[in-house]
Amino acid sequence: MRATVMYAAGDVRVETVPDPSLVDPTDAVVHVTRAAICGSDLWPYKSMEPDETGRRMGHEFIGLVDAVGSDVRTMKAGDLVLAPFVVSDGTCVFCREGLQTSCLHGGRYGFDGVDGGQGEAVRVPHADGTLVVLPVDEDDALMPSLLTLSDVMATGHHAALAAEVGPGKAVAVVGDGAVGLCGVIAARRLGAERILILGRHPDRTTLAREFGATDVVSERGDEAVERVRELTDGLGAHSVLECVGLEQSTVTALSIARPGGAVGRVGVPQDEAIPDALPVFMENVTIAGGPAPARAYIDELLPDVLEGRIEPGRVFDRTTKLDGVPDGYRAMNDREALKVLIEP
Amino acid sequence: MRATVMYAAGDVRVETVPDPSLVDPTDAVVHVTRAAICGSDLWPYKSMEPDETGRRMGHEFIGLVDAVGSDVRTMKAGDLVLAPFVVSDGTCVFCREGLQTSCLHGGRYGFDGVDGGQGEAVRVPHADGTLVVLPVDEDDALMPSLLTLSDVMATGHHAALAAEVGPGKAVAVVGDGAVGLCGVIAARRLGAERILILGRHPDRTTLAREFGATDVVSERGDEAVERVRELTDGLGAHSVLECVGLEQSTVTALSIARPGGAVGRVGVPQDEAIPDALPVFMENVTIAGGPAPARAYIDELLPDVLEGRIEPGRVFDRTTKLDGVPDGYRAMNDREALKVLIEP
Repeated sequence: MRATVMYAAGDVRVETVPDPSLVDPTDAVVHVTRAAICGSDLWPYKSMEPDETGRRMGHEFIGLVDAVGSDVRTMKAGDLVLAPFVVSDGTCVFCREGLQTSCLHGGRYGFDGVDGGQGEAVRVPHADGTLVVLPVDEDDALMPSLLTLSDVMATGHHAALAAEVGPGKAVAVVGDGAVGLCGVIAARRLGAERILILGRHPDRTTLAREFGATDVVSERGDEAVERVRELTDGLGAHSVLECVGLEQSTVTALSIARPGGAVGRVGVPQDEAIPDALPVFMENVTIAGGPAPARAYIDELLPDVLEGRIEPGRVFDRTTKLDGVPDGYRAMNDREALKVLIEP
Repeated sequence: MRATVMYAAGDVRVETVPDPSLVDPTDAVVHVTRAAICGSDLWPYKSMEPDETGRRMGHEFIGLVDAVGSDVRTMKAGDLVLAPFVVSDGTCVFCREGLQTSCLHGGRYGFDGVDGGQGEAVRVPHADGTLVVLPVDEDDALMPSLLTLSDVMATGHHAALAAEVGPGKAVAVVGDGAVGLCGVIAARRLGAERILILGRHPDRTTLAREFGATDVVSERGDEAVERVRELTDGLGAHSVLECVGLEQSTVTALSIARPGGAVGRVGVPQDEAIPDALPVFMENVTIAGGPAPARAYIDELLPDVLEGRIEPGRVFDRTTKLDGVPDGYRAMNDREALKVLIEP
């Protein structure tokens, strides 16, 4: 089959790789019908050291089950399944607590003999604990929005929960990428009264407004902090969603939180330390978040997608076949595309 | 009157200073009957740059109201009052939310013309919003435990709340100082199943066991992390109370938290940044805490002290008159005394 392999920063290729097959009795082999490029795929795209073996890419996909191992109970060949962005056994203590990203026997697509999602097919370990059967056809018009439940919408929701978003609160979303935009959807869905998006790409902030943002803050650094304060009675935001992961965005996120507020981090931190330990402490600001346990959130978010109450699939602004994946990386990295949908 | 003034690291004096008097109509003047030296007083004791004016010290006290301004409604001359460690107006948005440490019109004892608590008397601004009338006599045997509600017991309680302590949870307390010991009391009070105290002073860890600690971890650094994991099925603690504030203790606290767990910080951070941003993120560990809004917790904790269910006053292991305060600082700094009670 053909799949996406990254060999170094900027070097992404679509190549022929071995066809996947069942290895363990808990495996499923899934024929991919939709996949995506993730903002987090851009970190290695910017910085990966050359590696002759290459790294199989992709962790967001939907597909048709080709075959299941003898222990798989919840799906059969022909079922359409959604894959959260990590593998989880569904039975360990953390899975039972809804933190599948810390599964004791979990794993990542593209590592340890598991295929990446940006290819024609994937061997998925722990299929029962990982995959969710979707009650729609493979070409349903909701496919883009359903696909976001594998990562980006779940991540926006996680940021909002970590930031303690709730009715009546003022929420600030740092970053107007696909995760930030899904953070806006999540904040509105959870009842936020005011939603400020910090970003400066007009097409993205326009979409943010359509998703429910009430204010756009296009300033950066200290000016952004000042503007957020102006918009929040001088107090700051109750809830801040950090959807970037850089030092500057983290400083901004921590600085615009109101005393007693919370910052939900979902941008993968690119630095060793969290800045501003003392001011954050003095104002009792909580720092929470991490990788989203998408598997845990699907039950809650799926009905809203199926019934059209949220449309996170609108973050996809480009669709490509597998051949176009390398250019999709380039386009997202150049901010020419917001998020790329793949139809292998 | 006489009061404690710090002039430089290691230079604490008891001197004659002006008698306090009412300035604003919301003031009370309180004759101090009990006060204390706080672990946080030791930070300037270790590091204060010489200052000819000196800094008035002390923020934990109980006293008899001498006089009240014309706007004071909730107390009168002769009442015994407990002073939380910051001044708060009781009416601003943060006070109404129970975060009096971020009061918009608040202040600190020893700054801005407010007296310190380690003296004979204190002018307390915003008396109604700050002070709490105690329903006991000034020489009640419960005085040491009541005094801890001004800071150290409230701080232990805050750490436990920030760390999300609850029934059935495994809790680790980093630090066997007076705050850590009160953290043990708080964790037990909130229903923790297992309470590990990290400390190596036998007299203190013995007291921790009497307060409810189930295990003592005397190792440090990586060995402490390993030991905590052994004691928690290899998973780490659900809730970690960081009661020191140094980089090493913070690294330890973050490292022993279980995935999805929470670290409640109450030790004043002595460093610019919070270490280990990435591992904390990858395991979805929450970092919360800050200065405890003692004023908000008194309603909840006071009945437990009055009815003898908790005895935080046992953290005091030395009592002195005002003259002995400088030696009290020395003794606490040399770890010869755990916490010093002052009877002016």
